[in-house]
Amino acid sequence: MSSIAHELAKKQKEISVSEFFEKNKQILGFDSLTRALITSVKEPVDNSLDACEDASILPEILVRVEKNDNSEYTVTVEDNGPGIVKKQVPNVFARLLYGSRFHTRAQKRGQQGIGVSAVVMYGQLTTGKATRVRSKISDEDVAYECDLILDTKKNRPDIIKDDFVIWDRPHGTSFQVHVKGKYIGGKQSIFEYLKGVAIVNPHAKITFVPPEGNAIVFERASDQVPPPTKEIKPHPEGVELGELLSMAKYTESLKMTSFLNTEFSRISYRVAREVCELAGVPPDQKPDQMTLEQAGAILEAIKKVKIMSPETDCLSPIGETLIRKGLKNVLGPLKADFYAPPITREPKVFAGNPFVVEVGIVYGGELNKEEPVQILRFANRVPLMYQQGACAITQAVEAVDWRRYGLEQRGGTGIPFGPAIVLVHVASTKIPFTSESKEAIANIPEIREEIELALKACARRLKTHLNKAAKRSKARVKFEIVQDIIPMIAQKSAKIVGKPVPKLAGTITKIMNVVWIDEDVKFEKSRHHISVKIYNYTPKSQSFHLHMLLPFDKVDPKTLKEKPIEVREGNKVTWDIKRLASTEILELNFDLHGVSQEQYDENEVYVSGIDPASVIGVEVLPGDWDLEHLKITEEGAPEEKEEGEEGEVDYDEGAEAINNEE
Amino acid sequence: MSSIAHELAKKQKEISVSEFFEKNKQILGFDSLTRALITSVKEPVDNSLDACEDASILPEILVRVEKNDNSEYTVTVEDNGPGIVKKQVPNVFARLLYGSRFHTRAQKRGQQGIGVSAVVMYGQLTTGKATRVRSKISDEDVAYECDLILDTKKNRPDIIKDDFVIWDRPHGTSFQVHVKGKYIGGKQSIFEYLKGVAIVNPHAKITFVPPEGNAIVFERASDQVPPPTKEIKPHPEGVELGELLSMAKYTESLKMTSFLNTEFSRISYRVAREVCELAGVPPDQKPDQMTLEQAGAILEAIKKVKIMSPETDCLSPIGETLIRKGLKNVLGPLKADFYAPPITREPKVFAGNPFVVEVGIVYGGELNKEEPVQILRFANRVPLMYQQGACAITQAVEAVDWRRYGLEQRGGTGIPFGPAIVLVHVASTKIPFTSESKEAIANIPEIREEIELALKACARRLKTHLNKAAKRSKARVKFEIVQDIIPMIAQKSAKIVGKPVPKLAGTITKIMNVVWIDEDVKFEKSRHHISVKIYNYTPKSQSFHLHMLLPFDKVDPKTLKEKPIEVREGNKVTWDIKRLASTEILELNFDLHGVSQEQYDENEVYVSGIDPASVIGVEVLPGDWDLEHLKITEEGAPEEKEEGEEGEVDYDEGAEAINNEE
Repeated sequence: MSSIAHELAKKQKEISVSEFFEKNKQILGFDSLTRALITSVKEPVDNSLDACEDASILPEILVRVEKNDNSEYTVTVEDNGPGIVKKQVPNVFARLLYGSRFHTRAQKRGQQGIGVSAVVMYGQLTTGKATRVRSKISDEDVAYECDLILDTKKNRPDIIKDDFVIWDRPHGTSFQVHVKGKYIGGKQSIFEYLKGVAIVNPHAKITFVPPEGNAIVFERASDQVPPPTKEIKPHPEGVELGELLSMAKYTESLKMTSFLNTEFSRISYRVAREVCELAGVPPDQKPDQMTLEQAGAILEAIKKVKIMSPETDCLSPIGETLIRKGLKNVLGPLKADFYAPPITREPKVFAGNPFVVEVGIVYGGELNKEEPVQILRFANRVPLMYQQGACAITQAVEAVDWRRYGLEQRGGTGIPFGPAIVLVHVASTKIPFTSESKEAIANIPEIREEIELALKACARRLKTHLNKAAKRSKARVKFEIVQDIIPMIAQKSAKIVGKPVPKLAGTITKIMNVVWIDEDVKFEKSRHHISVKIYNYTPKSQSFHLHMLLPFDKVDPKTLKEKPIEVREGNKVTWDIKRLASTEILELNFDLHGVSQEQYDENEVYVSGIDPASVIGVEVLPGDWDLEHLKITEEGAPEEKEEGEEGEVDYDEGAEAINNEE
Repeated sequence: MSSIAHELAKKQKEISVSEFFEKNKQILGFDSLTRALITSVKEPVDNSLDACEDASILPEILVRVEKNDNSEYTVTVEDNGPGIVKKQVPNVFARLLYGSRFHTRAQKRGQQGIGVSAVVMYGQLTTGKATRVRSKISDEDVAYECDLILDTKKNRPDIIKDDFVIWDRPHGTSFQVHVKGKYIGGKQSIFEYLKGVAIVNPHAKITFVPPEGNAIVFERASDQVPPPTKEIKPHPEGVELGELLSMAKYTESLKMTSFLNTEFSRISYRVAREVCELAGVPPDQKPDQMTLEQAGAILEAIKKVKIMSPETDCLSPIGETLIRKGLKNVLGPLKADFYAPPITREPKVFAGNPFVVEVGIVYGGELNKEEPVQILRFANRVPLMYQQGACAITQAVEAVDWRRYGLEQRGGTGIPFGPAIVLVHVASTKIPFTSESKEAIANIPEIREEIELALKACARRLKTHLNKAAKRSKARVKFEIVQDIIPMIAQKSAKIVGKPVPKLAGTITKIMNVVWIDEDVKFEKSRHHISVKIYNYTPKSQSFHLHMLLPFDKVDPKTLKEKPIEVREGNKVTWDIKRLASTEILELNFDLHGVSQEQYDENEVYVSGIDPASVIGVEVLPGDWDLEHLKITEEGAPEEKEEGEEGEVDYDEGAEAINNEE
C-alpha cells in the first residue's frame, strides 16, 4: 500500500500555465479548425481596438486572411494604434498571463493577458512556424520587428530573430501568424465577427481581405472615439471576506477609515466611519490587524449602510441609437415591422464590479416566423460568436416567459420562436467569462437577473406594440363585416323576398355603436404620410379631443388641412373633433419631412373627453395628455395580467427596492 | 503619443495563475453560491475516487456538509484511499497546476491539477479560513494533519500549522474546507451529483450527511474495482505538426523509426519504416534534425499508412448493463415503457487520444410528455451538472433530427420534447473540457460526430420499437372496426330493413383478408407471461412458420402447450402453424421465469413461409431466421426513408469508411 502512496507521489509535479493550455487549447477557443481561425483574428483585433482607445486614436484596422497549403492560413492584423515599446513586444505576444489590464477595473475588451499569446502558441503548435510582430511607436523612426514563439515549458517568449525595419506609418502594430484552420462563411464566420465589431464600434474603420481576395470595408460611421472609460476602485458591494482581509494586509493606509476610503469607490470618510461604528471596529485600528470576525462585521455593516451606486463613467454602453442602427445593420435589406425602443438599465454591481445591461428587440416584417429568435450577444463591445448555450444572456432569454409578450414558446421556457432578433450587451469593468476563450458570460446571479429585467422591460414595449396591432386588426375585421358583408346580406335577402334593399346606416351604427379610429403611417421618399380616419358609428354626433405625439416642427404645413388647437412641448398635438355627425367619416392627413424612418415608425394616437367604451382603435386618456395612466399600462397593466404576472411584478418591485437602497 | 506607448508599457506585468483564478473564480465553477458548494464537494470526491482506483481499493467515501453562520458551510470529504505522503500534501491541496496526471494518457477523473486547490482558494477567499487536510499512508502509524491556505501571489501552499495525529483507520485522506455557499435540493444539487456518481461508480460506497442531518447511504452495487485503465502513448492520428516537432526535439531515441515506435502507440517498426519511406525521410535520421517540411510529410504519411485503431484497455466504458441500471436508478419509482438497448461505440481518436461514446435512451410510461427530454451527461464516470448548453453532448442532441425517431422537435433542431431520458457517457484518456470547471465537453468535431452517431444508432432502436407499437395499434384499430362495429352495423341495418342479421364471418374475412398476429408480454411476480394470438382472417386455411427470439431454457415447460418444432442456438424458437382454418384463432401462451424484467421487455416475433402482404402485426422473413434483412430495416430501411435520410446514410457510410482505414 505504501508503495502506491509513494509511487503516486513520484508522479506529482507542477506544470507551467502554457503547458496546461497547450494541452487544453480548446479552452482558449481552438476546439475546431473553423473556430481556431476566427479566434486567431479576434484576439489581435480586440487588442488593436483597446490600444487605439487607450491612445484616443480613431482605429483603422486591416485584417487579411490568406490560404496556404492544405489547411494552413496566414492571418495578418495591422492597426494604427500607439505601438508597443520594443522591450515589451515579446512578453505581450508570447507569454501567457502577461498584460496591462488584469488589475485594472475599467471596461476593456482584453483583460486576461492570454488571448493573443494563445494565438501565437496555437500557430506554432499546428504549423511549426513563428509569429511575426512589427511595432512602431511615434517617437522612433523605425519599427521593431521580431519572429516569436512561446517556450511552453517555461511560459516565456523565444525570439527567433529580430531587427529594425522601415515602416511608412507613424505608429502602429502588425501581427502575422500562421495557423491551421478552416475558412467558412455563414453565421459563425470571420466576416460576421467583423460585422459585429463594426456595429458596436462605429468609430472603427475595418478592412477585411478574405482568402478569395476582394476587400470588404466596414466604413467608419462616427468620427468620435468613445470617451475613455475611467479606471475605478472596487465598489464595496459583493467584496468577499478573504479579499477584504487580503486588501487590508497589503494596503498602505494606516487606519481603517482611510483604508476603506482609499481602496473602495463610493466610501467617503463619513461612510467609512459609519461602517466602522456599525461593525464595532475602531476607526483608528491598523487595517493589517483586522481579525476574521472584524472583517465579517465590516461586510455586514457595508450591506446596511447607505452606499451610492457605482460610478457610470467607467462604463461605455452602446446606447439606444447605436443599438437601433446595429440591428438595422444586421437585418441588411430585410424589413422589420417594429423596433422596440432599446433599454439601457441603470448600472448594478457584482463582486465590486459595476456593470450595465442593454437590450434591443426587432420584430416582424420579413424575419422568419418559423425559427427560434436570433440572439445577438455582446460583451464590452465585442460580439460573442460561440458557446451561446453556456452564456448568461442565452439563459436569461430562455428563462423569460415570452408567451406573455407575444412570442411562441413551448412550456414557457427555452429560446422562443418567432420573427424577432434580440440584442443584449453587457458592459462591465470586468466581464466574468465562463472560460479563457471569452465567448460566454458566466451565470452570475446579479448579472443574470439584470439581463432578465432588461429583456422583460424591452419585451413589454414589444407587447404594447403587438396589443395595439391586434386591437387594430380586430376593429378592422369587425368593420369589414359591418361595412361590407351586411350590405351584401341585405341585398341578397331583399332579392329573395322580393323587396327593396333597406337603408343600412342606422343598422350599422346600431351594431357598431362606436367611434372607430384607424391610423396608419407610410414612409416613402423620405416623407412620412400619416393618416388618421375617424368613423362615427354611433347614432348621435360626437365631440372629443384627439391627441398625437409627433415632432410638430417636422409637419409639412402644406399638407396639414385640419389644424390642431394646441401644440404642447413641441410634440404633444391636439385636435378638437367637433360634432362629427352619426355615420360621418373625418380624415386627418398630413406629411412629416426631415425625420428618419427609425425616428418615427409608429403613430401614437390617443383621445380624451369621450366614454372609453365607445371608442375602438386607440387608447382613451382620462384627461388631456394624462399619459401617466398609459405608462402603467406599458409596465403590465392589471387588465392584462396573466397567470404568474403577479410574481413578476413583485420581482420588479423588489429590484426597485434595491435601487432605492443604494 | 510616445508617452502613451511608454505609459502602457509600465503597466505590463505577469500575474500568477492563482491570481488569475482568484479574480476569475467563475471559470473554476464558483459562479453562484449553489454551484460553489457543489464544486467544493465534487473536486475532493473525484480525487478520492481516482486515488482509490489507482490503489485498487473499493472506495468508501463520507461527504458531510454542515451549515455555519450566514451563508458559510463546512464541507468534509473523507476516504479510505492510499493517502498522500506528507511532503506532497501541501502541494496537492494548495498549488494550482500541480498534480500527477497531467502528462498521463489514461482515463482519470482529475487531469488538470487545479480542482481541489481551487476549492481551498475559494474557501479562504470567501471565509478567510484555512482548509484542514489529514492523510495517513499505510506504512505510517500516525496521520499527518495540516491547515493550509494558497498564497495566491506566488501560487504556493502556505502551511498555517501542522502536526501528526492518531487516526483510527489504516489509510485514507480527509479534507475539510469552509466555504460561502448555498445548499439546495432539486436537479442541480449535491444529492443529485452524488447519486450520479453512485450510478456510474457502482463499486463505491458513498455516505452523505446533509446539513439537515439524516445520513443518506449510496450502497455498493458491485464488489469489483473497475480494472485499472492502462496508460498509453499518443495515437499518431491527430497529432499536430508543432507537437511532433517538439516531441522529436525532446525524445531520447536516436533514429526516426525508433522515435516513432517509442513515442506513439500502434506504430510498429514495420509501420515506422513505411511512414518514413512514404514521407521521404531517412529512417536513420536523428529525430531532432527533422525539418518543418519533413514533419509535415510524416503527418501526411501517417494519414495514408494503415495504422491500427487505438487500444481499448486504456478506457473504461460504463457498459450496457450499468447504463440500464443507471437509468432505472434515475427513474426511481417512475415506470417507463421502453429501455432502448444502449449503444457502446467502437473507440475513436482525437488529437492522439482514444475515446469511446455510450448512449442509452428510456422512453414513455410515466415520463413527462410535455417537457424537453432529460439529458444525463457523464465524462469519465463523472456526472456533469452545469453548462449543459455549452457541452458537445447537448449540441449533438440538438443537431439530431429526432422527428424521424418519433420525438417532437420544432424545425428538426434543438432539444426534442417527449417522454424520454437520454444518457450519454464520453470516456477518454483526455476529456477536452470547455473550461477548468470541467462541466462541459468542448465541441471537438471528432467527438461531436461520434456522439451524434451513437445517438442516432440508439434512436433507431427506439424508432423500431415505436414503429412496432404504432403498427400494432393500427392493426388493433382495424380489427376493432371489423370485429365490433361491422356486426353492429349489420344488426341495425337488418332491423331497419326488417331482415335477419346476415352471417358476417365471410364479410369480415373479405374485408380483412390478412393473418393478424397480436403479441403481448406482461411481467408479474418475477414471471413473464407471453401471449401470441393468431387470427386467420383470410378466406382459406393458412400454414406458415412462427419464430420468436427468447431464452428457451427459461420457458416454464408446464405452461408451454404448443410445442415448437425447432430451437436453434438456444434462443431461436420456431413453431409450425399448420392449416389454421379461415376465421379460426390460435393462441400461444407460456411463461418465462428466472429472467429479469430488463433482460426481456419486448417480444421479437417473426413469421416466414407466407406472403408478406397477407400478414399484419409482425415482420415477415424471406426465409427461416433470415434476420439479415431485418437488420437493414433497423438501420433505416428504404421503405422508411424520409427526406434527408439519404444524406444521413452517406454520413454513416463515411464513418464506416474511416473505420476501415484504421
